[in-house]
Amino acid sequence: MASMIVTDPSSAAAAVHRLPFARFSNGLISLGRFVGPLHVCSPTTTLPRTLSLRSPRSSRFITASMATEPSAKVIDGKAVAKQIREEIGADVSKLKEAIGVVPGLAVILVGDRKDSATYVRNKKKACESVGINSFEVHLPDDAPEEEVLKFISDFNADPTVHGILVQLPLPSHMNEQNILNAVTIEKDVDGFHPLNIGRLAMRGREPLFVPCTPKGCIELLHRYGVDIKGKRAVVIGRSNIVGMPAALLLQREDATVTIVHSRTKNPEEITRQADIIISAVGQPNMVRGNWIKPGAVIIDVGINPVEDASSPRGYRLVGDVCYEEACEIAAAVTPVPGGVGPMTIAMLLSNTLSSAKRAYNIK
Amino acid sequence: MASMIVTDPSSAAAAVHRLPFARFSNGLISLGRFVGPLHVCSPTTTLPRTLSLRSPRSSRFITASMATEPSAKVIDGKAVAKQIREEIGADVSKLKEAIGVVPGLAVILVGDRKDSATYVRNKKKACESVGINSFEVHLPDDAPEEEVLKFISDFNADPTVHGILVQLPLPSHMNEQNILNAVTIEKDVDGFHPLNIGRLAMRGREPLFVPCTPKGCIELLHRYGVDIKGKRAVVIGRSNIVGMPAALLLQREDATVTIVHSRTKNPEEITRQADIIISAVGQPNMVRGNWIKPGAVIIDVGINPVEDASSPRGYRLVGDVCYEEACEIAAAVTPVPGGVGPMTIAMLLSNTLSSAKRAYNIK
Repeated sequence: MASMIVTDPSSAAAAVHRLPFARFSNGLISLGRFVGPLHVCSPTTTLPRTLSLRSPRSSRFITASMATEPSAKVIDGKAVAKQIREEIGADVSKLKEAIGVVPGLAVILVGDRKDSATYVRNKKKACESVGINSFEVHLPDDAPEEEVLKFISDFNADPTVHGILVQLPLPSHMNEQNILNAVTIEKDVDGFHPLNIGRLAMRGREPLFVPCTPKGCIELLHRYGVDIKGKRAVVIGRSNIVGMPAALLLQREDATVTIVHSRTKNPEEITRQADIIISAVGQPNMVRGNWIKPGAVIIDVGINPVEDASSPRGYRLVGDVCYEEACEIAAAVTPVPGGVGPMTIAMLLSNTLSSAKRAYNIK
Repeated sequence: MASMIVTDPSSAAAAVHRLPFARFSNGLISLGRFVGPLHVCSPTTTLPRTLSLRSPRSSRFITASMATEPSAKVIDGKAVAKQIREEIGADVSKLKEAIGVVPGLAVILVGDRKDSATYVRNKKKACESVGINSFEVHLPDDAPEEEVLKFISDFNADPTVHGILVQLPLPSHMNEQNILNAVTIEKDVDGFHPLNIGRLAMRGREPLFVPCTPKGCIELLHRYGVDIKGKRAVVIGRSNIVGMPAALLLQREDATVTIVHSRTKNPEEITRQADIIISAVGQPNMVRGNWIKPGAVIIDVGINPVEDASSPRGYRLVGDVCYEEACEIAAAVTPVPGGVGPMTIAMLLSNTLSSAKRAYNIK
């Protein structure tokens, strides 16, 4: 059940689950994909802090001094994603009116995994909600690799398709690398092509697409008016799909970035220096209150199921960050669920729209 | 005069000079390409430390406790580069004996800049010294861009050429980006292609070439037996050709890396946390003793001319790091000149040899 909800390997938000569960030098180690509550997140002493954030809707700055209330601003990813989808919807309509072009996203699904089918359905629904055409190919589990490659080749050539996603995981007889490499870089809306990543890393170069989840993280910071330039940022986790590109994006915006990973000797000490924390390791409640600098802004990418007998489903979802403790210390924090999660599909739609605009040289 | 010695824009070692001279938030600002001694590097208090380093030749560890002597180990880039060139020479001979193939490096020089001519001559000499064939094209300053592109195209197709370098800067009427992009990635021995950089950034991917200067920095650490895994590393400077790829290389070796740059608010405080410092900003003596953690290892990429009336040439070369102060505090430090500088051409030869081996599937 849990995997149907939280692990879309084609969606970087949840892809932190696919990282090997690494031992952090603080002694924590995850017990597996589905783990019990490793830590009790008890509230810590509340520290006075000053919070300066811009409301995502009003674009005005809100400054508040707080002495005792454990009330970090909640960064509402669901609301921001909804707003972005509305903006995309409006842009899609304009594009259609102006030049008669409708952006198109093709999704290739191989096999009968229920979770994969759910993700594909969600993407299709999201496309429909903003007026983007969606194309779906569903092949049986034993389809030959050549058939997948043939569909990719057709979509590469099809001018009505502006983005191509291959739903992962693929059946074990297929070469994932070969198949992903077959998607033309102009339609690689996931943004994982090394050429895109290289451009992301280089000053003065522009990637065609920014990977969806890290893009969503930065978009949340922007929409909440969080200054990035000159700030200390710590990214926890160095995956190709979240941690590393998130660090590159922060670096592009002039933050001073440190990547904390499984070989880092004192992650809590380093993380405590950060004004901005992006955590993407898939370890429930790993980032405790004493890892957090008072007034920091926290983007929690982890979506981890932990056992919870009181829940009808027998589990609940928590982030990498101990939310209750973060609320006491941070200036702002994303909840799990409802934080980064909803942003990933919004950014996928955004990348598909950008791709269509680029195809017709429209800014 | 100075520029003839220290600024080869095709050689990343000196390319830190091409960075805009940025204001660091500690208030320092460089006065120009050729600056006077901004800081007096007076010795600071000597701190006790323990040093554990491997001699580059013996591969044995040397451990020494020092209480008072200001004697950091000098990382002798000149000696290491010589050793590497000998190894490359031996490998080139073996390759020739085994399959009759001689690696070849093509250099394209446009115009009559004396400094560029010097660099090209140095590269040619270095090739000769290890038995690599060098091909040189020298075009007049007013040559059309198409002519350069035609030569690149010919070298791309020529199986006796395994590496292609376009000597920079090009005359202003030429589009540098176009010309550099024309070099096939299989022969881009400078390693600056975004696809290479992307692969460098991604776990599980391998770049075809690693940019020469950052490769030289890491090679120095390896040859001196400096542990990188789990260590805190600070890279000062985030250029595409030195700082950024150096950070990616350290990250690949499991260091916890922070990039300090012109927008970093407290560079000295962050740098002081580092076990390994790589500095590549082109600011003479910027890194003072109080930036350095006792026992740190320092790789100084800067090669900065500063006025010196006592020198027959009227100037002397210094690094980004105040060498005298570093010697008091660090465990090991590269001198300037004679540190990273000689490693760059050695790594260029290494990349050319690797390219030839790869062309014939030889490990």
